[in-house]
Amino acid sequence: MSPTPNPTILFVSNPQGIPVPGEDLIHRPDITIDIDNEPLNGGVLTKTVALGIDPYMRRRMQFEYKPNTPVLGCGIGVVLRSENPKFRVGDHILGRSYPFAQYAVLSEATEPLRVLKNETGLPWTAYLGVLGLAGETAWVGYKAHAEAKKGETIYVSTGAGTVGSVVCQAAKAEGLRVIASTGSESKVEFLKEIGVDVAFNYKKQDVGTVLKENGGVDIYWDNVGGKALETVMGCMNKYGRIVICGFASQWNVPPTEWHGNKSLVLALVKNVTIKGFLSHDTIAKYGDFDFEAEVTKLVKEGKLNVREEASDKLEDAMKMLGDCLVGANEGKGVIVFS
Amino acid sequence: MSPTPNPTILFVSNPQGIPVPGEDLIHRPDITIDIDNEPLNGGVLTKTVALGIDPYMRRRMQFEYKPNTPVLGCGIGVVLRSENPKFRVGDHILGRSYPFAQYAVLSEATEPLRVLKNETGLPWTAYLGVLGLAGETAWVGYKAHAEAKKGETIYVSTGAGTVGSVVCQAAKAEGLRVIASTGSESKVEFLKEIGVDVAFNYKKQDVGTVLKENGGVDIYWDNVGGKALETVMGCMNKYGRIVICGFASQWNVPPTEWHGNKSLVLALVKNVTIKGFLSHDTIAKYGDFDFEAEVTKLVKEGKLNVREEASDKLEDAMKMLGDCLVGANEGKGVIVFS
Repeated sequence: MSPTPNPTILFVSNPQGIPVPGEDLIHRPDITIDIDNEPLNGGVLTKTVALGIDPYMRRRMQFEYKPNTPVLGCGIGVVLRSENPKFRVGDHILGRSYPFAQYAVLSEATEPLRVLKNETGLPWTAYLGVLGLAGETAWVGYKAHAEAKKGETIYVSTGAGTVGSVVCQAAKAEGLRVIASTGSESKVEFLKEIGVDVAFNYKKQDVGTVLKENGGVDIYWDNVGGKALETVMGCMNKYGRIVICGFASQWNVPPTEWHGNKSLVLALVKNVTIKGFLSHDTIAKYGDFDFEAEVTKLVKEGKLNVREEASDKLEDAMKMLGDCLVGANEGKGVIVFS
Repeated sequence: MSPTPNPTILFVSNPQGIPVPGEDLIHRPDITIDIDNEPLNGGVLTKTVALGIDPYMRRRMQFEYKPNTPVLGCGIGVVLRSENPKFRVGDHILGRSYPFAQYAVLSEATEPLRVLKNETGLPWTAYLGVLGLAGETAWVGYKAHAEAKKGETIYVSTGAGTVGSVVCQAAKAEGLRVIASTGSESKVEFLKEIGVDVAFNYKKQDVGTVLKENGGVDIYWDNVGGKALETVMGCMNKYGRIVICGFASQWNVPPTEWHGNKSLVLALVKNVTIKGFLSHDTIAKYGDFDFEAEVTKLVKEGKLNVREEASDKLEDAMKMLGDCLVGANEGKGVIVFS
């Protein structure tokens, strides 16, 4: 069979700040693939169904992606050919190092692959968001590290993102008082809709002032790092916990200009514990807290809502990634192939 | 009775850096006390036996001491008069807000006081060091927060200080590999004597290089904060723990010039937990881990050695405090009254 177009997003180099479309990442519609003859080496060939845009991809640029290879992230594809008896033609496969391309060759030799049965009838894209890495990160991180107790106050930065909104709703369900911030009025409204007690726009209100007016916080779910983390240290109550989940505020500047935190001595004075985590390491150590069963149930009951922002153009992935890193998105970004 | 001289160290104001004798702290030999008639208001009058010089006093200057009142710290005195039936004339009393003066009026209304029986025959000054606040801080902090496992590697900064040397020896007793740093060759020798596996002078060897050459660390016992804390973050192994116990490197500069830590994102990447603590809050939450019984036993068996540096001149307390904040001391500072 003749070559088939296989549009792909390539990673060029680790950006200094937010990746620039056309420079740090490029869309290559001219790449082709021979669907019938592409070597599989024991793996599968898939046609992509959906790709997820996740902030953690910025970190992978720094530590993992190789120049002039496809951007990797969470993706779902339908199997067209298989050399692995575990995966059959027509299966939906989820991978977390899925190339951002129309077609993909995936192998268990390089990453765990999973067949999605989706007996729940949720949209496939749920498995890239609330039931995907972001939801899992929120759920297992909250369950393993927040040590939350009913009646405590939690502050969630980037509360309207997938991770943030799952944390907010998990905390509400356990009887905590939830303070959450975001960067637009429409997202503040969303925070109120999902039950956040004190929702505010950090571009209009000072974080430290809001937290102090509300009696300080027992738990800080930190998705942003930088200056905000330093400020919140000053608002922690005794025996407080800070869960470091993300670093959103710092990706738009080079590491040499990252904010230097001068408030760590407050951890000592206030007996505060700071826990950084990656979800797969947390699961390896603590288990997954029945993540999929529990979260699926909450989603189907309408008790766990997240926002989604979809495009059917692969090239939009580049801008959407930049947007999610600076909070210019209005929901979880997904590319859905027609 | 006529007034009796009561030489006192007064706190003048919160220094910008290391307290300067004669400026931030002053020795006032001209202060007097009427031993027979000084009002006790339900407390006791003591003649001071010994006073301890502790780095944490620097933090009390920032948060607690009032201008033109005596410096407060750990002290032991013999009761001369008592209006409290719990304390009898001749008893040795230990207080942790003991005024740095020849005589003191102490009251349970303002601080917990304790009669020292000392049936073990150890010198009184042991209750200011290895059996005092420093030893207790090391013991309960290590037991509650380090989550140490046999075979792991711990790095202790200011390893030759009382806190540091107790941590080093507690860790050795549990089968850990101990790396410790200090600031002079004589103290490096002391570290070797107490069984430290890798002892080095941080003024001569780069901390990051030594730690990386030794395979990184699982636990960092941080007595210094600042740049060292940032550096060690880069040498932590996965699932590592950092126990923030002190802040020695930062007291010699004003807070506006404290080192800004840019490496907190590594806590996320490496799943590192950072725990700040004060010993009394840790004891309130976790108990004291049989501190006094266990440590007394180890001291009497010769398995727990700390160094002491004594003076019989009250005014030396000012310089000794500065010395212990910059590591210019050679052992735990104590003022012993003749």
